[in-house]
Amino acid sequence: MIIYCALMHYPVYDRQERVTATALTTIDVHDLARLAKTYGLDGCYVVTPLRSQQALGHRLIDHWVTGRGAVYNPTRKEALSLVRMADDVKEVLQDIEKQHGSGAKTVATAARHYAKARSYEEMAHLLHTDEDSPFLILFGTGWGLTQEIVEKSDYVLEPIEGKGYNHLSVRTAAAIILDRLLGGE
Amino acid sequence: MIIYCALMHYPVYDRQERVTATALTTIDVHDLARLAKTYGLDGCYVVTPLRSQQALGHRLIDHWVTGRGAVYNPTRKEALSLVRMADDVKEVLQDIEKQHGSGAKTVATAARHYAKARSYEEMAHLLHTDEDSPFLILFGTGWGLTQEIVEKSDYVLEPIEGKGYNHLSVRTAAAIILDRLLGGE
Repeated sequence: MIIYCALMHYPVYDRQERVTATALTTIDVHDLARLAKTYGLDGCYVVTPLRSQQALGHRLIDHWVTGRGAVYNPTRKEALSLVRMADDVKEVLQDIEKQHGSGAKTVATAARHYAKARSYEEMAHLLHTDEDSPFLILFGTGWGLTQEIVEKSDYVLEPIEGKGYNHLSVRTAAAIILDRLLGGE
Repeated sequence: MIIYCALMHYPVYDRQERVTATALTTIDVHDLARLAKTYGLDGCYVVTPLRSQQALGHRLIDHWVTGRGAVYNPTRKEALSLVRMADDVKEVLQDIEKQHGSGAKTVATAARHYAKARSYEEMAHLLHTDEDSPFLILFGTGWGLTQEIVEKSDYVLEPIEGKGYNHLSVRTAAAIILDRLLGGE
């Protein structure tokens, strides 16, 4: 089972449902990296086309992996070592293919309902039984992944069902989703 | 089923395992409030004995519940309306008792193993079947709830089992724990 995740800063919606590139939130990168390490993921990509945001991402990773942060907090180093910066999903898929020899299947996450959405149970089963292909789970920042990227994905997960309230942060949503897919082992 | 949670800033450990009071992290308050709303909790307490941190908490709540934030983002208002500030667990328990006529049973969460720890399945069953008593789930900031408060609690949950890595943020740990206890309905 080879599983990656990507924290997507583009293409996502803003609050007016326009396609936008969001700014990096450093706490999200820390939380996603720690989740990736907790659930045994093979890597975690931070995706943004913005040069300034990529530079911020690299600085953050360097600080914790090779800089003073690595000495201050070695467990954070372990987690941040899993993080890579990328321009877009295409670059992520190429990078995974380079490492594993086969392209990854993409799994979009969404707070809205999509007709082709899979249950967590079904998706967990697929992850555990399809040994030929790596998987890439996409988490959207801002107001979520664009419809286009969700529909182009190989799979879409159903939204997290709350009591009629569906406005979690990407950090906590990712935690719940990874635990539902991979926490039962 | 009456369930509250508390984000504990005291008494918790610092990195040298000394008992300390941590500073408020506003993003934690937002994330916990949104989780509380998602899982239908009756309220979410932010516990700190520090006056300056209580003032910050009140300012944050006021901004989103009655101030400009309420207009800017009504779904955030819904979530933050569940948040109350408190000095300590004793005050939280008194407040719950005032509302419900009976004291809450406390459920500590911990990243370490305790002999009396319950499984998520067992605890979920208790929450769903004990209708006489409210429950209060305690989440520790910093390096976790002190041993004393964990041992004085009515229940302790087992740690989230990762692949040998057990260093999640309180935000993402709370998300996973609430989903395991209450997400199956």
